[in-house]
Amino acid sequence: MEKKLIYEGKAKCIYEIIGRENIYLQEFKDDATAFNGEKKQSVAGKGALNNSISAILFEYLRSKGVNSHFIERVSDTGMLVRPLKIIKVEVVCRNIAAGSLVRKFGFSEAAELSKPLIEYYYKSDEFGDPLFTLAHIEEMKIANVNEMKKIDAVTLEVNLHLKKFFSDHGIKLVDFKLEFGYDSNGEIVLADEISPDTCRLWDLESGKKLDKDNFRFGLGNIAETYVEILDKIRK
Amino acid sequence: MEKKLIYEGKAKCIYEIIGRENIYLQEFKDDATAFNGEKKQSVAGKGALNNSISAILFEYLRSKGVNSHFIERVSDTGMLVRPLKIIKVEVVCRNIAAGSLVRKFGFSEAAELSKPLIEYYYKSDEFGDPLFTLAHIEEMKIANVNEMKKIDAVTLEVNLHLKKFFSDHGIKLVDFKLEFGYDSNGEIVLADEISPDTCRLWDLESGKKLDKDNFRFGLGNIAETYVEILDKIRK
Repeated sequence: MEKKLIYEGKAKCIYEIIGRENIYLQEFKDDATAFNGEKKQSVAGKGALNNSISAILFEYLRSKGVNSHFIERVSDTGMLVRPLKIIKVEVVCRNIAAGSLVRKFGFSEAAELSKPLIEYYYKSDEFGDPLFTLAHIEEMKIANVNEMKKIDAVTLEVNLHLKKFFSDHGIKLVDFKLEFGYDSNGEIVLADEISPDTCRLWDLESGKKLDKDNFRFGLGNIAETYVEILDKIRK
Repeated sequence: MEKKLIYEGKAKCIYEIIGRENIYLQEFKDDATAFNGEKKQSVAGKGALNNSISAILFEYLRSKGVNSHFIERVSDTGMLVRPLKIIKVEVVCRNIAAGSLVRKFGFSEAAELSKPLIEYYYKSDEFGDPLFTLAHIEEMKIANVNEMKKIDAVTLEVNLHLKKFFSDHGIKLVDFKLEFGYDSNGEIVLADEISPDTCRLWDLESGKKLDKDNFRFGLGNIAETYVEILDKIRK
């Protein structure tokens, strides 16, 4: 198919497909980045792994009634998606303390939270994706209160489903990042990817990290642990 | 009076007064610090100026029905206050974009906000006072949702009164930081100080900065501009 690049991010490209309306192609790259792009490396196979894992998770969510921009996986590294206007908020949902909760606020690593904790980050490479709040989102006219309520509700629903799904496959869902966009009707739809690049996933038995933290902290080949995740969730 | 130091902060000391129950002495120091203590200097007269300015503002708020820990000014640099257990949240209320709104999120400096924007910062020297949210405050058991609602309401009321007061005296209230504590009955009470160390204050006509930003960015002797504020608000 003939395609035209319309967006290139750190880990994915989005293409318009010439001659097909209302369908985009989302291609996963092998590039791994961390710390807002300060650490970079190409990891052979990562794009295909994240494409497969995301497709499985988006399909599972669809089976539970949570729709997303995902239509279908069409190649090793590509999936068809619905075109969305992305909302510049990265929504993080946490079940267990890790990462910036520990570093910035002194939470005990691996502490179970009393309920899912939702955080918003300003999706901006220029400003380094800083934590911000509903008040900033409103004032910056990124989204309104009702839209953020909808986003919170979908995020909590996704959390319930994914926690169960991963736990059924021997994995602990520590936290994850979602993105949302407006479709052509102005409806808010789940977007982006759901993969070990955007989730913290720990082995349920051993506690071993299976996600991008292995790359962030130089803990070995992430393609190997991503294969482990794919193997587990395919069972 | 005989006194015993019970807390020393960057800009103030709190003393127990021997033989007097339920009254503390808050002493303002001449020390100026910025950027979480990275920049430090002693500014002769600053303690006395902030004591006088805070006393005037707390008295004004009291006349409007907003009580605080403030009892009375008893010396150049000292005021009597009610003992409180301080809540580890710095509450920032903004009317005009400045400081971190510009630096971290790209707001236009001096842009009027559509409504007062409240932010919470984790009051922690160890962690450098990072921005956080109601969700963190709840999870960290610093305060509960109803207590934070009360704090928001008092903050907005203080903002209305101070905006009017400063504007009547030729000063624009850009933003300010408040702290709160629990009194012996567990009631939430306004604490700390309200001074050019904790407010951004611009001359209404010229736009000249009259506050601690002059110290932060080496724009001259802050004691001189603090005197300007005191002169204006005494009129």
